[in-house]
Amino acid sequence: MSNPTAAILVIGDEILSGRTRDENMYYLAGVLSAHGIDLREVRVVPDDQSAIVEGVNALRCAYEHVFTSGGIGPTHDDITADAIATAFGVPIVVDPEAEERIRGYCAKRGMTYTVEEQRMARIPAGATLITNELSGAPGFTVENVHVMAGVPVIFRAMVGAVLPGLAQGRPLTVRDYRVQRPESSIAGELRTLAESYGDLTIGSYPSMLEGRSGTTIVVRGLDADRVTEAISALHDAFPA
Amino acid sequence: MSNPTAAILVIGDEILSGRTRDENMYYLAGVLSAHGIDLREVRVVPDDQSAIVEGVNALRCAYEHVFTSGGIGPTHDDITADAIATAFGVPIVVDPEAEERIRGYCAKRGMTYTVEEQRMARIPAGATLITNELSGAPGFTVENVHVMAGVPVIFRAMVGAVLPGLAQGRPLTVRDYRVQRPESSIAGELRTLAESYGDLTIGSYPSMLEGRSGTTIVVRGLDADRVTEAISALHDAFPA
Repeated sequence: MSNPTAAILVIGDEILSGRTRDENMYYLAGVLSAHGIDLREVRVVPDDQSAIVEGVNALRCAYEHVFTSGGIGPTHDDITADAIATAFGVPIVVDPEAEERIRGYCAKRGMTYTVEEQRMARIPAGATLITNELSGAPGFTVENVHVMAGVPVIFRAMVGAVLPGLAQGRPLTVRDYRVQRPESSIAGELRTLAESYGDLTIGSYPSMLEGRSGTTIVVRGLDADRVTEAISALHDAFPA
Repeated sequence: MSNPTAAILVIGDEILSGRTRDENMYYLAGVLSAHGIDLREVRVVPDDQSAIVEGVNALRCAYEHVFTSGGIGPTHDDITADAIATAFGVPIVVDPEAEERIRGYCAKRGMTYTVEEQRMARIPAGATLITNELSGAPGFTVENVHVMAGVPVIFRAMVGAVLPGLAQGRPLTVRDYRVQRPESSIAGELRTLAESYGDLTIGSYPSMLEGRSGTTIVVRGLDADRVTEAISALHDAFPA
């Protein structure tokens, strides 16, 4: 596939400890797929400077886009901005535009602008802001790394702000076909069929429907006509 | 923390394409936390041989335990066993005990044992089986890597079979305290408090409750008494 490639870096002790179930990875995976961007890897790392630096450096060299989630608030455990600056070897600076936005956000809510609010205006030198309507604190982009909030509603708003600026690929066509037979009984024929559609990805997943074990076959590809052809071939090979 | 460390490798195009929301990572993260095993990293990679080999080799060298999910069925896209054998540089073999189990499973259900069923008995040489009541096809363990099914109900059964054999750490004590103030207004005091409890992890998460914005502070640590102390200190610093 020649679509742009991407990775997600989820920064979050709350995910690794099992306290919180991931939402952002699931949301962004769906959005990227619809946008024609090929999500190739996800990593979840703790709120730990060296883990973030290592993760972001590995991913930004391997994929065209990296999206991070989490750790950009005002508290002591929000260390993502510093870690990204370290990863890129640039200083961290108070961004005047970010500061103005946060001041405006505070003024509207009758909050005092303090050194704690100012922490949220600290971004790596040379980064551009990712602004959103929901929160005063912006995300930011450094080269191919898009750094966003962990709170799902704000994460989604930031994704909405970033995506229009990215090159869009061909959206993947995904279609399912369900066979009322266990996986192993269709595996041989399915393998032959998958080989003759080498330009598509054909996945096979055991599934239960009304108490009967069957197989859901998922066909994915950039060429919608070829996906339709493969689904027809599946109909022929495994009639309902 | 001196608890055993762990990582999870989720193998699944269906997660990366946004089709399926992860369940296994969330489930295992909670179980490991309760078992006193410190989950330090999760990676999600596609059903791709080199991605699996690279992921498993990076993680097995960095952490005491690696748990994988997905890709051990009978179909063409089930390439995990081969990838793990490659990662360890060992041949893949048909395991007699696995074969017997799968034969028994087929016999009980009136299914013919074919070359397709036999595929599920192929494991890396030297691996030990992870058996479960729900499925004929076993998972397996090679050194510190535990290879399990992707179907959540079977994954959970395999986790149940593996865990008793692993050294258990001290379970983490996790307690929450909610403050009815926005994060930035408590960040300074919270930082000071977090510094005096450097043996604990104190996370701060913006949250909404009944339409008011507040902060949930999560305290995690191996020493339950220290966690209780920190929660008291939070009560004192931010009275309800």
